[in-house]
Amino acid sequence: MSSVDVPVALLGYGTVGSAVHRMLDESAEEIERATGHRLRVVRALVRDPAREREHAPSPGLLTDDFAAIRDDPDIALVAEVMGGLEPTGGYVLNLLRAGTPVVTANKQLLARSGPELFAAAAEGGVQIRFEASVCAAIPVVKLLRESLVVTNVHRVLGIVNGTTNFILGEMEAGRTYADSLAEAQRLGYAEADPTEDVTGLDAAAKMAILATVAFGTRVPLDWIEVAGIDTVRDEHVAAARALEMRVKLVGEAMLVDGRVGVRVCPAFVDARHPLAAVEGAFNAVMLQGDAIRELTLEGPGAGGLETASAVVADMVAVLGTGGAGFLNQDPVWRSLERLPAGELPSPHYLRVEVEDRAGVLARIAQELANEGVSVARLVQQQADGHAVLHVVTHEAPAGRVQAALAAIRALPEAGRRAAALPVVSSRGVAELGWT
Amino acid sequence: MSSVDVPVALLGYGTVGSAVHRMLDESAEEIERATGHRLRVVRALVRDPAREREHAPSPGLLTDDFAAIRDDPDIALVAEVMGGLEPTGGYVLNLLRAGTPVVTANKQLLARSGPELFAAAAEGGVQIRFEASVCAAIPVVKLLRESLVVTNVHRVLGIVNGTTNFILGEMEAGRTYADSLAEAQRLGYAEADPTEDVTGLDAAAKMAILATVAFGTRVPLDWIEVAGIDTVRDEHVAAARALEMRVKLVGEAMLVDGRVGVRVCPAFVDARHPLAAVEGAFNAVMLQGDAIRELTLEGPGAGGLETASAVVADMVAVLGTGGAGFLNQDPVWRSLERLPAGELPSPHYLRVEVEDRAGVLARIAQELANEGVSVARLVQQQADGHAVLHVVTHEAPAGRVQAALAAIRALPEAGRRAAALPVVSSRGVAELGWT
Repeated sequence: MSSVDVPVALLGYGTVGSAVHRMLDESAEEIERATGHRLRVVRALVRDPAREREHAPSPGLLTDDFAAIRDDPDIALVAEVMGGLEPTGGYVLNLLRAGTPVVTANKQLLARSGPELFAAAAEGGVQIRFEASVCAAIPVVKLLRESLVVTNVHRVLGIVNGTTNFILGEMEAGRTYADSLAEAQRLGYAEADPTEDVTGLDAAAKMAILATVAFGTRVPLDWIEVAGIDTVRDEHVAAARALEMRVKLVGEAMLVDGRVGVRVCPAFVDARHPLAAVEGAFNAVMLQGDAIRELTLEGPGAGGLETASAVVADMVAVLGTGGAGFLNQDPVWRSLERLPAGELPSPHYLRVEVEDRAGVLARIAQELANEGVSVARLVQQQADGHAVLHVVTHEAPAGRVQAALAAIRALPEAGRRAAALPVVSSRGVAELGWT
Repeated sequence: MSSVDVPVALLGYGTVGSAVHRMLDESAEEIERATGHRLRVVRALVRDPAREREHAPSPGLLTDDFAAIRDDPDIALVAEVMGGLEPTGGYVLNLLRAGTPVVTANKQLLARSGPELFAAAAEGGVQIRFEASVCAAIPVVKLLRESLVVTNVHRVLGIVNGTTNFILGEMEAGRTYADSLAEAQRLGYAEADPTEDVTGLDAAAKMAILATVAFGTRVPLDWIEVAGIDTVRDEHVAAARALEMRVKLVGEAMLVDGRVGVRVCPAFVDARHPLAAVEGAFNAVMLQGDAIRELTLEGPGAGGLETASAVVADMVAVLGTGGAGFLNQDPVWRSLERLPAGELPSPHYLRVEVEDRAGVLARIAQELANEGVSVARLVQQQADGHAVLHVVTHEAPAGRVQAALAAIRALPEAGRRAAALPVVSSRGVAELGWT
């Protein structure tokens, strides 16, 4: 299939916009393979084209004149990454009505003016895609609109604000609300003015978009009952723990007897519920429907690169759902070699039963060292007449661990039941406790 | 946009096939809205068309002659839901080469012959989609192929076998391996012959498909290092608990210096890792890539309806990525009413500080009863000079709970700090413990 050159434009060239540009350049081959199109950023709208920028764009790319994009008949697709309601909303409506597809990352614009934008897109006979407007890298909009067409989604539950999820986690660890908020600000998770986050307004805008797409109906922002985490007290966090639950800021959208209810508020989440496991600044959305029962998506809900990746995926999807189509190419497009199983790196857990006498531990440690396997954690337990060693190693190739294990099994003082299993951990293995 | 009539055929008409047929009929309007096409099942291949079936298909639908499907020029799309390697593989190759797009749920066929099928699809200039072949309702193939084109996914971690995940959960609860397996069989999670599941072979086939799609290269089944849960001993489960980890059957596919490593084996998973939270017969897949960091999808990995829903989503996607395209219609296609916030149903947690004397508990219980709010769990604690009541209610409208709370706050013997928060639970609230 011959490649089609596709000139595109950006509205905005800040953190997200410049990341989109870079990704389109760096992934040009992958995109061409998936869609048959080669995307090329030809214009980006900014307020001040002369200002110095970290990643200097090529000369002539930046413009402060929207008409230079609107009136360029070659531009096949526009990504809006400038934010704000005006003049952004007017630009997007203008483009859609004139028949230019638009991809946007603008949560507030979608939550307030979604239906107008959709109508403009229908009028212009083009697509508007807005994955990046909700939960950044989590592709929940695409799934709702494409994969779950027939499943009658009737409930959407979400942790859609990472700042508050981080703060609540800190409170669980014993910090006060004020200290937790300050820590979130120090780490860049919370703005200097955290009002939108802590009062639940940010989450409400995201739930309005999700409810609109899930239920196919207009969900105005003022339908949503909102309470923020500023009402959560230490005693609630303690009670939740005692009940084997966690306090989370939960967005919930429901279809009940053909009516739509949406709320955002602190809630107690059962520790065994998938949403309870969402840590730090991550987001998660659970979709409940007839055939799928429940489907949960978890990932980073904010960040420049994550947002840019969702914008690029939408741009690719606009092209991929046009005439040429997705997936006309062979998905097996290269021939990579096998990594032998023994070379797969991983931390490991080892369990060794040993005779309880001097020198045994040293010999086992030596066998691990002989294979270059280093120990992150070690616990020795007494069992009737012998000792059990529990070892957690740092990352090591599986083959080295197996070789050390074989050597340990051959020691006269070590039990034959020695075993090793890989460890999957998102924390450093040295931080793991023993209870 | 005028509707296009699209005749489709099924290979197979068992649990999944008849569910696909029913979903296509019941969701005809939703599908037409999303794609502009009206799908109509015109033929289904079975071994014995005369056999009685629970959901009787219309006369003339069933045939035992593959040629009746292959040679019908009207059939625009075929869904393969018959399973097996032969004659199924030959049928699918035949259809693809002749230019008929195919959707398949066949894990073994894809794992063994994926690259041949992809080549045949390229030769015929049509799509093959296979979402249902891995983790049923979890749309991981679509995300890898469409949303994550530019994110350089370099690691795929999965709990892709629900049977073994259920068995390991039972073992954590104190059952033996043999009892846990028997329970899985009783509940229908495990086959009478559970070999494919417990030895890890089923998971290996799924990981081969995921690795192929994620890394864009052929991953033969015999590249995969496989160990099953039949090697897991009670002492491993106990050690994992002490380390704040869980034993899971984990599939792991990695790209290391341009080489592909895949293994399936029991592993220790840190309790705070998203995969640790996967309960019962559910599946989950974590995708790690440059811009997305990590994205986790969790949902039912098996089941007739769940599989059928993935097959239908693929059929819709084949049409939606053709000329007419997805999403040309306004996603706000109906006007639903608002459900007032007070009517949103949910269990609730209530915390009330009370004077520690006779009759107080009765008055609070009475206020709840007055609003029709019933109590699932109640814990009373002593604090300096007063008592604290922790109440978890059964599901009740939020307005009723708030009304009861207002009445309780007005009691002279109850504290002003009384508060209520919704509870999100996947278990019955009466089962919640207090530690």
